[in-house]
Amino acid sequence: MGRYAIGVDYGTQSCRAVLVELGTARELAASVCPYTHGVMDQVLPDGTPLPPDWALQHPGDYMEALERTIPDVMAQGGVDPADVVGLGIDFTACTMLPIDRGGQPLCFRRELTGNPHSYVKLWKHHAAQEEADRINETAARRGETFIERYGGKVSSEWMLPKIWQILNEAPDIYEAADRFIEAGDWVVMRMTSSEARNSCTAGYKALWSRQDGYPSPEFFRALDPRLENVVRDKLPGSIYPLGHRAGGLTADMARRTGLYEGTPVAVCNVDAHVTVPATGISEPGHMLMIMGTSTCHMVVGTETRIVPGMCGVVEDGILPGYFGYEAGQSCVGDHFEWFVNHCVPEAYEREARERGLGIHALLTEKAARLLPGESGLVALDWWNGNRSVLVDADLTGLMVGMTLHTRPEEIYRALIEATAYGTRVIIENFRRYGVPVNALYAAGGIAQKNELMMQIYADVTGMDIRIGASAQAPAVGAAMFGAVAAGAAAGGYDSINDAAREMGRVLPRVYRPIPGNAARYQTLYEQYCELHDAFGRGGNDVMKRIKRLREEVLRTRANEGEG
Amino acid sequence: MGRYAIGVDYGTQSCRAVLVELGTARELAASVCPYTHGVMDQVLPDGTPLPPDWALQHPGDYMEALERTIPDVMAQGGVDPADVVGLGIDFTACTMLPIDRGGQPLCFRRELTGNPHSYVKLWKHHAAQEEADRINETAARRGETFIERYGGKVSSEWMLPKIWQILNEAPDIYEAADRFIEAGDWVVMRMTSSEARNSCTAGYKALWSRQDGYPSPEFFRALDPRLENVVRDKLPGSIYPLGHRAGGLTADMARRTGLYEGTPVAVCNVDAHVTVPATGISEPGHMLMIMGTSTCHMVVGTETRIVPGMCGVVEDGILPGYFGYEAGQSCVGDHFEWFVNHCVPEAYEREARERGLGIHALLTEKAARLLPGESGLVALDWWNGNRSVLVDADLTGLMVGMTLHTRPEEIYRALIEATAYGTRVIIENFRRYGVPVNALYAAGGIAQKNELMMQIYADVTGMDIRIGASAQAPAVGAAMFGAVAAGAAAGGYDSINDAAREMGRVLPRVYRPIPGNAARYQTLYEQYCELHDAFGRGGNDVMKRIKRLREEVLRTRANEGEG
Repeated sequence: MGRYAIGVDYGTQSCRAVLVELGTARELAASVCPYTHGVMDQVLPDGTPLPPDWALQHPGDYMEALERTIPDVMAQGGVDPADVVGLGIDFTACTMLPIDRGGQPLCFRRELTGNPHSYVKLWKHHAAQEEADRINETAARRGETFIERYGGKVSSEWMLPKIWQILNEAPDIYEAADRFIEAGDWVVMRMTSSEARNSCTAGYKALWSRQDGYPSPEFFRALDPRLENVVRDKLPGSIYPLGHRAGGLTADMARRTGLYEGTPVAVCNVDAHVTVPATGISEPGHMLMIMGTSTCHMVVGTETRIVPGMCGVVEDGILPGYFGYEAGQSCVGDHFEWFVNHCVPEAYEREARERGLGIHALLTEKAARLLPGESGLVALDWWNGNRSVLVDADLTGLMVGMTLHTRPEEIYRALIEATAYGTRVIIENFRRYGVPVNALYAAGGIAQKNELMMQIYADVTGMDIRIGASAQAPAVGAAMFGAVAAGAAAGGYDSINDAAREMGRVLPRVYRPIPGNAARYQTLYEQYCELHDAFGRGGNDVMKRIKRLREEVLRTRANEGEG
Repeated sequence: MGRYAIGVDYGTQSCRAVLVELGTARELAASVCPYTHGVMDQVLPDGTPLPPDWALQHPGDYMEALERTIPDVMAQGGVDPADVVGLGIDFTACTMLPIDRGGQPLCFRRELTGNPHSYVKLWKHHAAQEEADRINETAARRGETFIERYGGKVSSEWMLPKIWQILNEAPDIYEAADRFIEAGDWVVMRMTSSEARNSCTAGYKALWSRQDGYPSPEFFRALDPRLENVVRDKLPGSIYPLGHRAGGLTADMARRTGLYEGTPVAVCNVDAHVTVPATGISEPGHMLMIMGTSTCHMVVGTETRIVPGMCGVVEDGILPGYFGYEAGQSCVGDHFEWFVNHCVPEAYEREARERGLGIHALLTEKAARLLPGESGLVALDWWNGNRSVLVDADLTGLMVGMTLHTRPEEIYRALIEATAYGTRVIIENFRRYGVPVNALYAAGGIAQKNELMMQIYADVTGMDIRIGASAQAPAVGAAMFGAVAAGAAAGGYDSINDAAREMGRVLPRVYRPIPGNAARYQTLYEQYCELHDAFGRGGNDVMKRIKRLREEVLRTRANEGEG
């Protein structure tokens, strides 16, 4: 008789549940449910059109997904519900919604179904940029120290800009909202009927810290007098560390999912963050890179340090008991997609077709034949700005070293190398400011599939790299937190560290730096740093001036188009 | 009854003769003859293999071409040989050969047909780089002032490196050679039986100046004691200004070509240079750009000025009576070819095919829809190093401003713009050092065909641009010099300036700066200059260091390959 946990990973387009055996981390069953309303970025269900940059979801989809996927994995796995010791979920963030006193989303009210502000604002809802800008200006002007924990900048994706946008554009919704809540915390509340908010999203997305709480009413008043008591009035409730037992499954939810009433449910968590223990990381100094279109870097430390350019430091934000540090590169897989979509010659496409290869595979094969330094190219990986460590969305890409002999695979490799240099800058920046980084892990599809890229990362950073083994690591990680919510006495774990040690999984292959390559990359990295500092730290303003001119030209063109 | 002249343009692969009516510049007939032996860069006619970087020609081909093309244009034109007042030729340079006392090429001797050094070394024979490097070092060490006339650097393509290579690798050929001569001067000698060397190639390619002659025996002794008297012993003969009458056609050559004995023949000239009067330029300050794979800039002035980074200043080197200045960009059309060969996506190729357009035409059409500054890109046009004004073959390309939205036509346009900025740097550099540039002309296929490019050049330089009209301007220019050799009394012209005023031709369309564009390009040009100086003048050595590492890696790879 095994012990099992269920993890539910709420992504952007769909929800995935996994049934995992504790101890072995064997994945018995998985089930995916796309959201019925998907991402609403054009119109509401009733046809109401949405402005640009909006991205909404329907909270009913989240509950529907739960009621479909959990019975499905239980049926597939053939497991006795009595052996399911706990349940955890991870969610995109900040994905937030207004609810009433009874916990009902405002969009469920018939009279509000046509009001966009009554729905869930998805993480990638980007229509609160003005609010974010004013928060940043005000925090800088007032010398607020909380902003240091976020590398000096609040994103338009976060909780407070989104709340303020509602207040500005739909004060009636702001009034009608008893409170605002992360969608993941809302789902946990529906499962357990207890409102236990999690320290991860509160810390990384809502400017909260365990030590100082939220920013002060004075700060909020300086933003807008109506916001003075936004925390007291609209963000109530306690905040708990990750792995905390939010409550037991309600009778109603037990009936809907086929699990037992009272099954322990952990507080919500975030997809990138739950992957940390799923990769076996339980110690300070072990950095995990989640590599996809962009890369998220996470590492925990034993002390709080202010590291310029990080995305955030949050106590209990990644592993309870530690300070969780997050940094990011805004453009990784996106670089290679851009290159493949815009820069690959027909002859290469033809060769790939004839040989039955994907174009990435062909380019990787050709790029792998090159030695470090052979292309003569170095790029700055800023095609989508720079998140860490410069926190500057106005930066753009740069490449140097082209000759008449430069071939596409050399450019492709230079883009890969540039993202590796960018990662090394982040690692060294953490070290410089007192956060040790002494082991490196990677997760995500790119990390599992692209051997060339991972070898380059090992050579550039000079560190061994281990790769997370699970293809559904977030759901497995969420399940592990569910087992922690249950505790060892109930067949789970007493800490996520115990769970990570027993259930974390990496692939057998370790990427180790090849000494000759590492030496050459050291030279190239120094060149990258010189370009990085020249163009990124104000030595050479060419990049900014060109971008400003471009924006001016586009404005003129738009005005002429209108005129 | 008209008056006519014949111009013969000796190119790299073939020779083209044109029969032109004086006054009207009407081109009555043209005839092309490919060289029987072409460019020999692999083997000699007898199968003797050639080392890398070699490029030879067979002097017999030149005479054959003359005997084929001249009778052909005379037959086509139906012109009385009595009405052909003169004959001129232009030639690639430095294209040189060893001859014996009687003027016979050494390769004509049976016992030397297997010796590569007995043949014509074509301009693009690049195997004398070591000799060129040592000339440059020695000139710098000794503080030789002649080198200032060449922007500080002698090219491996020039006369002295080629002679020295013969001395080093085939001292017997050096001994057997009575003298060395430009192939063009040799052809004129064969036509007229008088050895009249021209001031253009002597000045630009053999370190000669009208004022100071050749470098001193002391300099040559410092290079190599055996070279001490190379000028006296191996480069004898007088040097004449362009348009000078080398002599009259010999009876033998008259018989072979169908022209009259005694028809005046001008001293040889160079293809780019003869295009100057063919475009109607006869005044100081009027710059001509010959635009092809690379661009050659020519302008004459009334004084000698030392302009850093120019390719050369030669009295009587372009128009007699003036100081001819030459500068160059090593990579113009080559940039666009590189882009088209390596960076154009399949969808664009497909669109071009479906619409029956060339790929350059499609890219140009798309690029033409962009406003200046809209791409947000600025490039340094150094894919093939930089000739003027930095004289640095180790520089490489750079592009800044890429985002995930950057499209191929934006990169294509940025490359065009980069070459325009490079031209403006050359123009402003001439002005700064006292050589006025106050009118701009362009010739060559790109100039005639690419309207977008020429408009960009006008907008970037802020100058009107006029385009040479003839598709065979070099041959027409050579014919004009032939008419000058005849003189007005014999139906020709007394000066090339008179000929240029009467026969120079430009297209009706003048490209004029569009004020709004010019203002934006001013901003972008300033950014180009900042990058140009940062990477090109030693402020930022990243480019050089990357290139050095690349060369090291390639050497290692070659050694490993051999080992």
